[in-house]
Amino acid sequence: MIVCDRMPKRPARRLTHLDARGRAHVVDVSEKPATKRRAEAVALVSTTAEVARAILDGKTAKGDVAAVARIAAILGAKRTSELVPLCHPLALTYVAADVEVEPKRGTIRIVVSAECIGPTGVEMEAMTGASVGALTVYDMIKGLDRGASITRVELVSKSGGRSGSWRRA
Amino acid sequence: MIVCDRMPKRPARRLTHLDARGRAHVVDVSEKPATKRRAEAVALVSTTAEVARAILDGKTAKGDVAAVARIAAILGAKRTSELVPLCHPLALTYVAADVEVEPKRGTIRIVVSAECIGPTGVEMEAMTGASVGALTVYDMIKGLDRGASITRVELVSKSGGRSGSWRRA
Amino acid sequence: MIVCDRMPKRPARRLTHLDARGRAHVVDVSEKPATKRRAEAVALVSTTAEVARAILDGKTAKGDVAAVARIAAILGAKRTSELVPLCHPLALTYVAADVEVEPKRGTIRIVVSAECIGPTGVEMEAMTGASVGALTVYDMIKGLDRGASITRVELVSKSGGRSGSWRRA
Amino acid sequence: MIVCDRMPKRPARRLTHLDARGRAHVVDVSEKPATKRRAEAVALVSTTAEVARAILDGKTAKGDVAAVARIAAILGAKRTSELVPLCHPLALTYVAADVEVEPKRGTIRIVVSAECIGPTGVEMEAMTGASVGALTVYDMIKGLDRGASITRVELVSKSGGRSGSWRRA
Amino acid sequence: MIVCDRMPKRPARRLTHLDARGRAHVVDVSEKPATKRRAEAVALVSTTAEVARAILDGKTAKGDVAAVARIAAILGAKRTSELVPLCHPLALTYVAADVEVEPKRGTIRIVVSAECIGPTGVEMEAMTGASVGALTVYDMIKGLDRGASITRVELVSKSGGRSGSWRRA
Amino acid sequence: MIVCDRMPKRPARRLTHLDARGRAHVVDVSEKPATKRRAEAVALVSTTAEVARAILDGKTAKGDVAAVARIAAILGAKRTSELVPLCHPLALTYVAADVEVEPKRGTIRIVVSAECIGPTGVEMEAMTGASVGALTVYDMIKGLDRGASITRVELVSKSGGRSGSWRRA
Repeated sequence: MIVCDRMPKRPARRLTHLDARGRAHVVDVSEKPATKRRAEAVALVSTTAEVARAILDGKTAKGDVAAVARIAAILGAKRTSELVPLCHPLALTYVAADVEVEPKRGTIRIVVSAECIGPTGVEMEAMTGASVGALTVYDMIKGLDRGASITRVELVSKSGGRSGSWRRA
Repeated sequence: MIVCDRMPKRPARRLTHLDARGRAHVVDVSEKPATKRRAEAVALVSTTAEVARAILDGKTAKGDVAAVARIAAILGAKRTSELVPLCHPLALTYVAADVEVEPKRGTIRIVVSAECIGPTGVEMEAMTGASVGALTVYDMIKGLDRGASITRVELVSKSGGRSGSWRRA
Repeated sequence: MIVCDRMPKRPARRLTHLDARGRAHVVDVSEKPATKRRAEAVALVSTTAEVARAILDGKTAKGDVAAVARIAAILGAKRTSELVPLCHPLALTYVAADVEVEPKRGTIRIVVSAECIGPTGVEMEAMTGASVGALTVYDMIKGLDRGASITRVELVSKSGGRSGSWRRA
Repeated sequence: MIVCDRMPKRPARRLTHLDARGRAHVVDVSEKPATKRRAEAVALVSTTAEVARAILDGKTAKGDVAAVARIAAILGAKRTSELVPLCHPLALTYVAADVEVEPKRGTIRIVVSAECIGPTGVEMEAMTGASVGALTVYDMIKGLDRGASITRVELVSKSGGRSGSWRRA
Repeated sequence: MIVCDRMPKRPARRLTHLDARGRAHVVDVSEKPATKRRAEAVALVSTTAEVARAILDGKTAKGDVAAVARIAAILGAKRTSELVPLCHPLALTYVAADVEVEPKRGTIRIVVSAECIGPTGVEMEAMTGASVGALTVYDMIKGLDRGASITRVELVSKSGGRSGSWRRA
Repeated sequence: MIVCDRMPKRPARRLTHLDARGRAHVVDVSEKPATKRRAEAVALVSTTAEVARAILDGKTAKGDVAAVARIAAILGAKRTSELVPLCHPLALTYVAADVEVEPKRGTIRIVVSAECIGPTGVEMEAMTGASVGALTVYDMIKGLDRGASITRVELVSKSGGRSGSWRRA
């Protein structure tokens, strides 16, 4: 697996979603072979240690905060092409979401993995799932800490397709 | 307008979305009066100066990158209650999205404002709109910079309702 | 009821959906009073007399072609704000769809009426319902006549709101 | 490519969406081979020359009217099977929308192209995209000209599949 | 509260969803006053004692089976008007779902409560939520017991509106 | 075709939708071959003989009650993966719904068949379609008989995939 921090340089002449006249479109993938694609993304919610502990206590006892976020993330990943205008509809073959609470740092991490066998990648599905999971956590804690915020949503890794594998440094 | 960095302290005994047994539910707002609610949220996408300039050039010429993100943000705000499990469905009376590209910093800011007249706030609508706008920008630039990331989604201000006005410091 | 062919002239300086800088947004209706709104739209599908008769025969016997189009039109009207980016979500209080086949002319008319009590009109709900009904009819006949087409989707009348009543001449 | 105005005659005995008892169903395509399918549809909005010019001015300056309609058309095409009851869900491999304003005629044309590799055609995706684009244009101009109307939604061409290629005369 | 097993008899002359010609429509509720409405529905999934115990073990340890079903039920309730063609869109003010596993009987009960302040009842929201919760449970156990089935989805009680309160005997 | 009442026994150690730590996920089907899958499910609505006859009279005359339920069932089947959190999105190749009224027993049966060519079964699509059809019937008769209920939603048969064919005894 080739691992690099940034994608191999490509001249930044043109955004792939814009045609020659600059208009947005869903890019043509009909000539690309169907290969196994995988992507993983992470979102981070930052709050107070007190709130993180409240989530964790709830989680230990009944699991609901993490469970709601996980289900929301999975459902969100499946609806990516309805939300992100230029995404292709994809038949995901796998989606999983994990929620980790770190009470000392006052953070909640949502990690979403997605896979499909198709002509285009699943980066956006993983990113959308992580975003929706983080929004769901924020929704459940904003009554305790409105100042909480989502401090990161980013791709962790991807594999499959012409551009090969990639992992954030 | 009372402005403070953090919500007035409330004992963190219980997350408002969990009932006495810790199970999630959509909280009862039937006794709360309908007042005018407003919220504003911001999302930030961080990329290279080169990519930000490519977006800006596209924007100057045809406006599509910013326009796609704005429309996605507006549509996303309207679908909040489908995505975030414990959100109430709301009849938004106003939604606007703004996209600002800062080529020097390599950042794209998506600001979403939402309003409704109702018994519950529109913070999640603003937050969801900003998230979807940021995902849309990431989708359009990931071919140029897969290492780009969403570095913030947060509430800027809210007004209306029992808890009054709030603005991030 | 004031009935006129065109809306009372208003200077065409600015499209109401664009702000001062020309960016799209969902217009603010929070200060507008909630009144009873009603709108009616019609869509017309043109095909051959033979196909229209085939629909009519089906309709007489089991009603399915018209019934499928009616249900699709009603469901479509309810999803207007998901489809048309700058529409407000509305709590429709009434929707009805009617399908009329005129075999001599080879036309199928879909008439949709919508009502709500709210600060903004239901023209788009009636228009969207009629469009979806017409698409559904086309879908069901395109195997017999691919050259069929939707030759009209237009507002028939509207009432309620500041701009009063209007009826197409 | 075989080009003809009307599909080769097929006896109009039965609408393909109705079974032997006349009940609607989503037709079985499991035995049909997956081939590359393409379709193009056009929708036409008719308004006054004054309004068309207002759109064009907005478009030149910031592009928003056309951009909103293009994005709405693309998103609409992707949701066809949710709107048109008997359509198969399809994994579109390409969608593009174009908006052309002709101020002299007072018309706005929305052209949508769609492609997939599958057992059934994408005519409905192109038609639905064009319809939603036209509804979006109407929504944005109805404050200036409520009498505007959609005067056409029709298939321009299709290719792929057993019935081969077709182009409107 | 008036409690009775069956609604007060009304002559069965006409289904309220059909007009004088028998066509379906969303009934007009614009003249009905907005009052507080509440409904509760229950769904029952029947499986083997062994599978019920497996769910319960999972539930004790991590809560996920019940949590997934609860979230699905809540989200399902909010989407009722998209699924049930003649339902009005409603701004629910409260939704809760409860999942109870009875290992001896091999049953899983999903109870959904819904409330709104509006001109029409929330029976369908409670019923739809309970159905989606039950489907979700079935989906999670069908690998262990494909013969499991949903043996009941029914209204438990409703209150508010002209027809008053009702409770199943 | 191997037909048996219950699935061949498999040790009930672990629910397939839960991972080793008991968290829900969409199971990985990327290594499973795409084969033709078919499933059939039935839902039963129980009401009074009088109401069943009212439906049947409507059905004979105009077909709308059964038609609305059929269309709702077909649309519901297509939206399964949005409603049931751990279902894979599937490109259904066939969906049909049938509604049978038995006035003597006061029952309405909704039978839904679904097919796809893919790595996972369509049981949930058939079950969801049948549920939505039954909810739609209940919605249309609840004004006449609020005590009506859905007394069964169950799989009738399935074929395709590693576990082979199955039919309820």
